Amino acid sequence: MSEENPPKGENPPAQKQEKKEKKSKKEKEKTSGMDTSLKYDRVGLENVMKRRFFVVPAFEIYNGVAGLYDFGPTGCQLKNHIENYWREHFILEESLLEISATCLTPECVLKTSGHVDKFTDFAVKDLKTGQGYRCDKLIQEWINKEKKKKKITEEKIKELDILYEECERFEEKEINECIEKYKIKSPDTGNDLGKAYKFNLMFETQIGPSGGLKGYLRPETAQGHFLNFKHLLEFNGGRMPFGSASIGLGFRNEIAPRSGLLRVREFSMAEIEYYVDPENKSHKKYNSIKNIKLPLWPSERQLNHESVLLDLTIEEAVEKKIIGNETLAYFICKTYQFLIGIGINEKGIRFRQHTPKEMAHYASDCWDAEIETSYGWIEVAGHADRTCYDLSRHAKATNTELVAARLLKEPKVVKGIKVIVNKGQIFKDMSDKGKAKILCEKLSNLNDEEKETYMNEYEKDGKIEVNINEEKFILEKEKNEIKLERFEQKIIEEKYTPNVIEPSFGIGRIVYCVMEHCFGVREQDKKRTYFNFPPSVAPYKVSILPLIANQEFLQFVEPIRKILVQNGISYKIDETSDSIGRRYARTDEIGIPFGITIDDVTIKDNTVTFREIVTMKQIRVPISDVGLICKNLANRIEKWEDVILRYPAFEAKKEEK
Amino acid sequence: MSEENPPKGENPPAQKQEKKEKKSKKEKEKTSGMDTSLKYDRVGLENVMKRRFFVVPAFEIYNGVAGLYDFGPTGCQLKNHIENYWREHFILEESLLEISATCLTPECVLKTSGHVDKFTDFAVKDLKTGQGYRCDKLIQEWINKEKKKKKITEEKIKELDILYEECERFEEKEINECIEKYKIKSPDTGNDLGKAYKFNLMFETQIGPSGGLKGYLRPETAQGHFLNFKHLLEFNGGRMPFGSASIGLGFRNEIAPRSGLLRVREFSMAEIEYYVDPENKSHKKYNSIKNIKLPLWPSERQLNHESVLLDLTIEEAVEKKIIGNETLAYFICKTYQFLIGIGINEKGIRFRQHTPKEMAHYASDCWDAEIETSYGWIEVAGHADRTCYDLSRHAKATNTELVAARLLKEPKVVKGIKVIVNKGQIFKDMSDKGKAKILCEKLSNLNDEEKETYMNEYEKDGKIEVNINEEKFILEKEKNEIKLERFEQKIIEEKYTPNVIEPSFGIGRIVYCVMEHCFGVREQDKKRTYFNFPPSVAPYKVSILPLIANQEFLQFVEPIRKILVQNGISYKIDETSDSIGRRYARTDEIGIPFGITIDDVTIKDNTVTFREIVTMKQIRVPISDVGLICKNLANRIEKWEDVILRYPAFEAKKEEK
Repeated sequence: MSEENPPKGENPPAQKQEKKEKKSKKEKEKTSGMDTSLKYDRVGLENVMKRRFFVVPAFEIYNGVAGLYDFGPTGCQLKNHIENYWREHFILEESLLEISATCLTPECVLKTSGHVDKFTDFAVKDLKTGQGYRCDKLIQEWINKEKKKKKITEEKIKELDILYEECERFEEKEINECIEKYKIKSPDTGNDLGKAYKFNLMFETQIGPSGGLKGYLRPETAQGHFLNFKHLLEFNGGRMPFGSASIGLGFRNEIAPRSGLLRVREFSMAEIEYYVDPENKSHKKYNSIKNIKLPLWPSERQLNHESVLLDLTIEEAVEKKIIGNETLAYFICKTYQFLIGIGINEKGIRFRQHTPKEMAHYASDCWDAEIETSYGWIEVAGHADRTCYDLSRHAKATNTELVAARLLKEPKVVKGIKVIVNKGQIFKDMSDKGKAKILCEKLSNLNDEEKETYMNEYEKDGKIEVNINEEKFILEKEKNEIKLERFEQKIIEEKYTPNVIEPSFGIGRIVYCVMEHCFGVREQDKKRTYFNFPPSVAPYKVSILPLIANQEFLQFVEPIRKILVQNGISYKIDETSDSIGRRYARTDEIGIPFGITIDDVTIKDNTVTFREIVTMKQIRVPISDVGLICKNLANRIEKWEDVILRYPAFEAKKEEK
Repeated sequence: MSEENPPKGENPPAQKQEKKEKKSKKEKEKTSGMDTSLKYDRVGLENVMKRRFFVVPAFEIYNGVAGLYDFGPTGCQLKNHIENYWREHFILEESLLEISATCLTPECVLKTSGHVDKFTDFAVKDLKTGQGYRCDKLIQEWINKEKKKKKITEEKIKELDILYEECERFEEKEINECIEKYKIKSPDTGNDLGKAYKFNLMFETQIGPSGGLKGYLRPETAQGHFLNFKHLLEFNGGRMPFGSASIGLGFRNEIAPRSGLLRVREFSMAEIEYYVDPENKSHKKYNSIKNIKLPLWPSERQLNHESVLLDLTIEEAVEKKIIGNETLAYFICKTYQFLIGIGINEKGIRFRQHTPKEMAHYASDCWDAEIETSYGWIEVAGHADRTCYDLSRHAKATNTELVAARLLKEPKVVKGIKVIVNKGQIFKDMSDKGKAKILCEKLSNLNDEEKETYMNEYEKDGKIEVNINEEKFILEKEKNEIKLERFEQKIIEEKYTPNVIEPSFGIGRIVYCVMEHCFGVREQDKKRTYFNFPPSVAPYKVSILPLIANQEFLQFVEPIRKILVQNGISYKIDETSDSIGRRYARTDEIGIPFGITIDDVTIKDNTVTFREIVTMKQIRVPISDVGLICKNLANRIEKWEDVILRYPAFEAKKEEK
């Protein structure tokens, strides 16, 4: 994210997840006024990530593929638990409708959504090797090298600095001119480069054997929600507002992915589409969050090089129109609570509004949740007001009504005329059945004006005269051929296309940020690293460690394991004969928050020691209690500070060494 | 599955999920000897599935794409809960290592695994429209039509019946001959058909912009496990046996998908790769399952048209070599327990062994879990002994060691000779540095025989004579140029390539089977349908129904909702003014097992009625108890039969009507 930029064009609908960062990272940090004192140890973390199988490059034994990563047992569980936390925090608490739509998507859908035409980056190829490069990155890398040259003049540096900013917005022609002017070559080989071309960032494939159906892997889950809108609204009993949610894969064929987990080609995303009445974007739970203060960085303050607002309540922000509406504000707050809940340091969170230039053309407001990392501030979630863009585009493309209905403040009365044609009688009365048919058809398709004319005749004479191809037909009430009636109808609701508020989360990025924010070293021993994951998201909740690897101690492992399984608690057993300190260090390294040790006292009274990772404090607990303690801690029903009060403390004999 | 057949070829590695059914469905049912009295109402179910948004065709408003389906809120939660049940039942209970690898896979990996060459079906195209058809299905459909003709002779029918069976095994040439001989045309247009061609069932795509890296969407999660074997073994501390597990998407570009959810192009699958020592496939928990009796249909009995064995214990099956080994038998049992736990009727489960002809070439034994449905018996899980096939292929292709180590029963002593070359001294002593280099190199690369020869010289004279290109060099111990030592080394372990036992589950198919098996109608009113899902997998656990939609009753909704959220219980609120019976009917239709009704007594004493779906019995429960009751029921801690005893019964006044 910090090194690469999103697709060009007119800010297509799908660019929500990775918006352009208009200013360079450093400049931003200078102006944002946030506390950037948090320290991140990327090298140490990456070492642990790989060694303890959190995340590894995919297809490593085949030398890997850029932008593809596999989650090992620790990373996979961390990801699962973060997704489950999200599910509880959003879907369950907000009564959202969870759906799961397919990744494979036919071209027609993404043509309508704008992705086929606009979800692109410019690329150039090395003319000899065929290697592709992303144009803006290529030019910027060349500038960085150029500026390091000794003989460069002040004037030249200025020129290049401007180019550095501008090249991100270059179109095809300007890129080609730039490459020619500065004689930029392939950075890997020095070969000549070809002409710039638009490269669509969606993975393309063929569905079925006929070659007729072009398809793509979805770049966002959102389209699957919109296409199911009718079903969703019906399932919700027609009531508005409401939201749908989805956790699933997204795919982007990045030209040159770097930045580890922050820019990948296949990723888990969690998206909410919340459907509101455009005339009323209030939220019924708004009162519960309106007094919260959040670090907000409105677009205007960014443009004026002013700092992040730290002391504004949500209510003030909405009243001052800083945040567009209550529903958007509500979800921004929910995201803040979510990020803190899963272990992000509150000092490392801010909400940055899109500047008018970077705002997508469908959006009326957009706020990114950004987290500070060793890569700088990175976007992990977007909160966009997508208006009615997608629903109305799909409705038009498919000739389907994708609308909701609102009650009118006052019912409307609509007047009309009902024409009752007695076909049987007419056919009986007329000898020319062909003409009878034409006559009946004509009477079934009268417009309002014609109806009014006939009604006047009918009210006056009890009959009407119909002219078809200069032939006259008389139809009479008395003959039971026709009847006309005036009526009044009360209309109590009107239809509208809902607007969509969309909170969208990149799970992979969030997993990475949680790891950076929770990673630390022991004060006593800088080589010993640990994670202070909140127990609810920690990969494994508890370790089981028999102090000595003999049968007297080992016999307790299985009963304890069973209790944990019954309580749905993930565990890791370490029965090796390594010292207990060394084994604690290993469990610390993968962030297991609690440790159960079976020692000589266990044999006497069926109690074990129970250790917490951050404080390294221990208590003595009956085996029968460990299941419930772990469950309560993992499910946020109880805190360690409360648990520790209920049991006797246990003093370890220097075992941490 | 019942209508379509898996890819041809030599039973490629990936065919495990959908093996050929050698005999026609009816014949099988005749011979299997199973109770097929279970009744399935597919029409009724499909109606509810669509109307209550369990599953709908994807891209419906764009007229859909065959073989792609979206899960709505009910279907998605049912799927989630079945996956979570699987996770607890297998991953947590068996201490498996869960991983999450990418769907995008470079060609080289799938070339090694055999999928690029062998994961194919034969297709033909309509020469005018380009529409593709799967050859065997095309021929079989033609036969079905042909046999309905009036003038057909008995002899011809016999010929066609043989062709019907044989065409499934046809190669390219035989297909073309068959189409020509019988003048088979395109079934939709009557146009001529082209030549048969092999169609690979994997979705192909390009990774990155250079066009150099061809990729596919994985057809199974298994390869991601194998490629990470080294990391997995290391994470497990080098201990064997152990297993990895993964729940994720698989993709198959079916030529002509039908049979609804049973044959789709994108599907969720859950796979376990359990790594064992080929010399010891025992399982430490075998004793806990060995007395269980399962419906087993061994290959031999199928070939002899004999029925399913119903009265054999697992232990007998393993002893009689009916099931290949303990680990395979253990997982077959676990699958049986899993299927029953999620709501499959035990009468509708059987385990069918692959016949030698249908067995994949890598497998030494394979058992499918089959479930009876309205489509016949369908495969939902496979249990294959994949031997060392994949690990050794990838090891060879990448020149990587993918091995484990076993302790030798008795340590081996290996004798050897160590040659210590003192390069510094040699270079000092020799004027021709070029020759010194060659000499040192030669001495560093001696084979055992050469070492023995030099050792003999060295032991005798304290020096050795080395001949290089007819030139002699003397190296002496005394000059400190060289030293040779005999040593003995104790070897305690030896390396081996593990074998893999693979239980593999198609989640979408299982979801469909659970729906068919749990679907029923009320005896009193055949129009009222319901699902008797086990509470642990039911989409929503409980409904909240205020008897009357006024504030006196509605005020209780939010406090009850909060209690449920705190306990992680999914709920559905129905505040409409419809009769309570009608609202129960709606919740029954989506299989909500429990219903909370707020009535006039609630206002007086804070109790609600609590109703169970199958018995429709109700009890009166304090509001403060509902969270724990729901949680215990949903998490299988308590059964309804026990809960009902603790609270007073509540007699509804004919409210079910």
